Amino acid sequence: MYLEKLNAPTDLKNMTISECEKLADEIRGALLTKSSCIGGHLASNLGMVEATIALHYVFDSPKDKIVFDVSHQCYTHKILTGRKEAFISPEQYRSVSGYTNPAESEHDFFQVGHTATSISLACGLAKARDLNGGHENIIAIIGDGSLSGGEALEGLDFGGSELGSNLIIIVNDNGQSIAENHGGIYRNFTKLRETHGKSDLNLFRAFGYDYLFVERGNNIADLIEAFSGVKDIAHPVVVHICTTKGKGYPIAEQNKEKCHWVRPFDIQTGEEKNPFKGERYDKIIRDHLLERMKQDSRITTIIAAVPDALAFSEDKRKSAGKQFIDVGIAEEHAVALAAGIARNGGKPVFATMSTFFQRTYDQISQELCINMCAATLIVANASVYAVNDVTHIGIFDIPLLSNIPNLVYLAPTNRQEYLAMLDWSIDQDDYPVAIRAPRNGIFEAKWDVEVDYSHLDKYHMVQSGKEIAVIALGDFFQMGEEVVRLLLSKYGISATLINPRYISGIDRDMLCALASDHKMIVTLEDGILNGGFGEKIASFYGSWKNMQVLNYGLQKEFLDRYDLEEVMKKNRLVPEMILEDIKRLYE
Amino acid sequence: MYLEKLNAPTDLKNMTISECEKLADEIRGALLTKSSCIGGHLASNLGMVEATIALHYVFDSPKDKIVFDVSHQCYTHKILTGRKEAFISPEQYRSVSGYTNPAESEHDFFQVGHTATSISLACGLAKARDLNGGHENIIAIIGDGSLSGGEALEGLDFGGSELGSNLIIIVNDNGQSIAENHGGIYRNFTKLRETHGKSDLNLFRAFGYDYLFVERGNNIADLIEAFSGVKDIAHPVVVHICTTKGKGYPIAEQNKEKCHWVRPFDIQTGEEKNPFKGERYDKIIRDHLLERMKQDSRITTIIAAVPDALAFSEDKRKSAGKQFIDVGIAEEHAVALAAGIARNGGKPVFATMSTFFQRTYDQISQELCINMCAATLIVANASVYAVNDVTHIGIFDIPLLSNIPNLVYLAPTNRQEYLAMLDWSIDQDDYPVAIRAPRNGIFEAKWDVEVDYSHLDKYHMVQSGKEIAVIALGDFFQMGEEVVRLLLSKYGISATLINPRYISGIDRDMLCALASDHKMIVTLEDGILNGGFGEKIASFYGSWKNMQVLNYGLQKEFLDRYDLEEVMKKNRLVPEMILEDIKRLYE
Repeated sequence: MYLEKLNAPTDLKNMTISECEKLADEIRGALLTKSSCIGGHLASNLGMVEATIALHYVFDSPKDKIVFDVSHQCYTHKILTGRKEAFISPEQYRSVSGYTNPAESEHDFFQVGHTATSISLACGLAKARDLNGGHENIIAIIGDGSLSGGEALEGLDFGGSELGSNLIIIVNDNGQSIAENHGGIYRNFTKLRETHGKSDLNLFRAFGYDYLFVERGNNIADLIEAFSGVKDIAHPVVVHICTTKGKGYPIAEQNKEKCHWVRPFDIQTGEEKNPFKGERYDKIIRDHLLERMKQDSRITTIIAAVPDALAFSEDKRKSAGKQFIDVGIAEEHAVALAAGIARNGGKPVFATMSTFFQRTYDQISQELCINMCAATLIVANASVYAVNDVTHIGIFDIPLLSNIPNLVYLAPTNRQEYLAMLDWSIDQDDYPVAIRAPRNGIFEAKWDVEVDYSHLDKYHMVQSGKEIAVIALGDFFQMGEEVVRLLLSKYGISATLINPRYISGIDRDMLCALASDHKMIVTLEDGILNGGFGEKIASFYGSWKNMQVLNYGLQKEFLDRYDLEEVMKKNRLVPEMILEDIKRLYE
Repeated sequence: MYLEKLNAPTDLKNMTISECEKLADEIRGALLTKSSCIGGHLASNLGMVEATIALHYVFDSPKDKIVFDVSHQCYTHKILTGRKEAFISPEQYRSVSGYTNPAESEHDFFQVGHTATSISLACGLAKARDLNGGHENIIAIIGDGSLSGGEALEGLDFGGSELGSNLIIIVNDNGQSIAENHGGIYRNFTKLRETHGKSDLNLFRAFGYDYLFVERGNNIADLIEAFSGVKDIAHPVVVHICTTKGKGYPIAEQNKEKCHWVRPFDIQTGEEKNPFKGERYDKIIRDHLLERMKQDSRITTIIAAVPDALAFSEDKRKSAGKQFIDVGIAEEHAVALAAGIARNGGKPVFATMSTFFQRTYDQISQELCINMCAATLIVANASVYAVNDVTHIGIFDIPLLSNIPNLVYLAPTNRQEYLAMLDWSIDQDDYPVAIRAPRNGIFEAKWDVEVDYSHLDKYHMVQSGKEIAVIALGDFFQMGEEVVRLLLSKYGISATLINPRYISGIDRDMLCALASDHKMIVTLEDGILNGGFGEKIASFYGSWKNMQVLNYGLQKEFLDRYDLEEVMKKNRLVPEMILEDIKRLYE
């Protein structure tokens, strides 16, 4: 076993190519075993084993600085830089994050989880090096679909002409994004592959880079030769390496999309071990959209490289035909495209994760909202209950989106309400609309949801009571129900329960009316409090003398791989704790 | 006069080339006269006169749809589409906006003012056309520096391969952005110009486009021929036209940057008629940065195509040398670059307008703030007192930036405080920092500003009083002073005056202490209230029983070309009106 003896990248330097190849096999085995046990990014890492070994063989990390894009291809890098136990000892599997992380190692420079970042970050390291008079190599690794992102293209444009010094961009071309590739760039990649890198149509050269083509991107000897050739180069160069996504695990090679990121699975069959059997909103909404698209050719579903946001697997994409668009990693383009479609009579629905809407604030504000283009945005994974990696948490979209003028931001609380809001949004022509997909399970409506949501900012009083009103937004509505139940059972208070439905505006009439027989308002929201929903209610009542307002939500912080229960307790997002507070503060 | 007889684009169709050329001269004269009187985008429009005439000669607007990028090149388009009076009748000069505007004409499809949008918007129009079974031409006009923007590059990537139908992109290559061009793209433009469009290194072809080169982009006959050749084309094509920025006005041709956008000027000399003679923060900060950069090679100033954000004119850029970087229109890259520079020991300062920070929320959150990279962001034009075009208003950055964890967002209230905050930010290594440049004139400090701003969220009590406390943020501090003065003179109340300094956090200790002898808090902020500063104070006191909070700021709306006084009155941002409210609400 070579893996067991390996403690630092320097240990690679004395190994022969053949030993490196055996090491690659061992690493591949470890990646497969670990991801079959606890899940993770599989196919993207399997393809990069050899390239990562060759990089550390040739370059001198951490003096030479390697920046991984998305960093979901960094597992081998972690193994080679002192963190192998996290991949070979099951009890330490969870000791490292899934992305590069400076807190773990001096070989990691940034904590990144969003795509398209590595070239710009590397340009920054290079610029500082040049100002410092340093001479280290700066290496950016990009690929696996990331190059279509605006930030990557801006970085590519800058790096090709503005530095004039060492900058090595490794383009990992595995012919695939998460799903299939989209965009002219990838056609150029195909052309370059077909011509063994010799085509005159060369995007990288056109951007100003020197260019090197490595046909066998999973061959360590070829890679070492290529990287040695560009080491200490004094100008920007792109090394285009052709790899096989899922390399070495036939099931992944044949199911690249499914194996990009996996839940625990059986290595023999590739089948997920404990697949979620219940209903999921992504599938409910997808099926609803497919049905509506069939009946109305104006409706278009847009995705930005994460078809998972709406469970649009390959067969579903095909059945939607021209009414389904995957723009690739290009959220800015997705929103502007939606604006254009809406302006010419179409009915665009763009779905992505809460965290990725962060990449397109300006287009939502300028193209959609100033222009009042009636597009629908579905905000997935927008919840403390969703992904808990720091780079992907979905608790910031309320301040991000709800404060943009003209945008109607809706928070459904159950299945029928979600569908009714979606239908209303598609059918109307007046407003840009965003809908925050619930993440706390699927509940059924107990009231009529077929209302005209064009009467903006009208809250729904689900239960009329006295003394205390609980305004419970979106998927914290059920928590609000529980608080109201407990108020009655514990203190005999028949409280008012309100489903506000609108995140982006307050129902002044209802709030005014509440003041006549209520003394306390409790707000609940599944996101950070700062800049959010509850603060607006507090501000509304700020000048009133006899109304207390208690805002519940999350405090402003970057949570990482958190324990849900702990976070909820820390923020007092537990019905019993809310009751304690009410008791303490209410006279 | 041809101009006087021209009412719609159809009137062009029967004109001869020579008549069109005379029309171009007349239009050029009108553009020059109007901008010399009221200012506006001059050089960018002068270069596009012939191309716009040729476009409307060949295509059938509004059936064929023309989308202008930034739309600061659309004046001739406005003249040709029924709005000539706004350019020839001085009394109607202000009847149209400076950008395309669907409210003005059916020939305008979007209200746009930010760059890099046209290709994506056009792709959307084209996609909807294809789903509708339509056959119109969709034309995007881009150039003048816009192509380096991530959104434009994402759109270029998508349009080159994903539509497979008519899409005509006119690239206006005038060899210039606002300042000089930066990035590999523009090197490729140079190469294409030098080879009369024949170079194999062709970025557009590499992205998948058909390609046409028009050497004489100010020659109507050549342009008509080229546009006729691509009309009704069934695939995506780029028409690369070489124009002269400032064409026909020698002073603009020779001073392209200065004449990109002008204030009223003398046509003979090009001199501004009433130049602002007073001190300005952009120059004060620029000079301070130049001085510091001279002494410390780690400090780097970064600009994204608007050197005006810090008055970095050409001579100042030169004197900063390698420590000045203009990344071109590429805000995402600018922030990620700053993160990289900071991580490798540099001291980056990135300055741009409030409205352009909207383009880089994700990079600020992920690259800077999750990674705690100590970069400095200077947020210019962040004020109701600044630009009043709807696409450029600076009243949204407080909700945008202040709710991002880890970012320290500071609001100086006077010259010395601004400089002290900037120096602190550059000298510390712990926090990403943003500073909101004041816009209400230059005031001098009346207190010690040389404090350690690392003690986060410590407000400064400028005057200790009783009953009422006024917390006046940033450039509304002086309004707060006036409110406190009036409270004393009119009602004999000696109120407390607080300069909060930090936008991104609240001083809980001070707020708690205030409660002992205050009954009312008044907050003032120069931005929208929603998601802003004051709401956090209201939320803090929400559960307290004897504290009223009055939040003053702007309501959430897209203001456009507003009258400042009216807007201030409407939002009761007038000391006397605030006093009225206090009197009414205070017992």
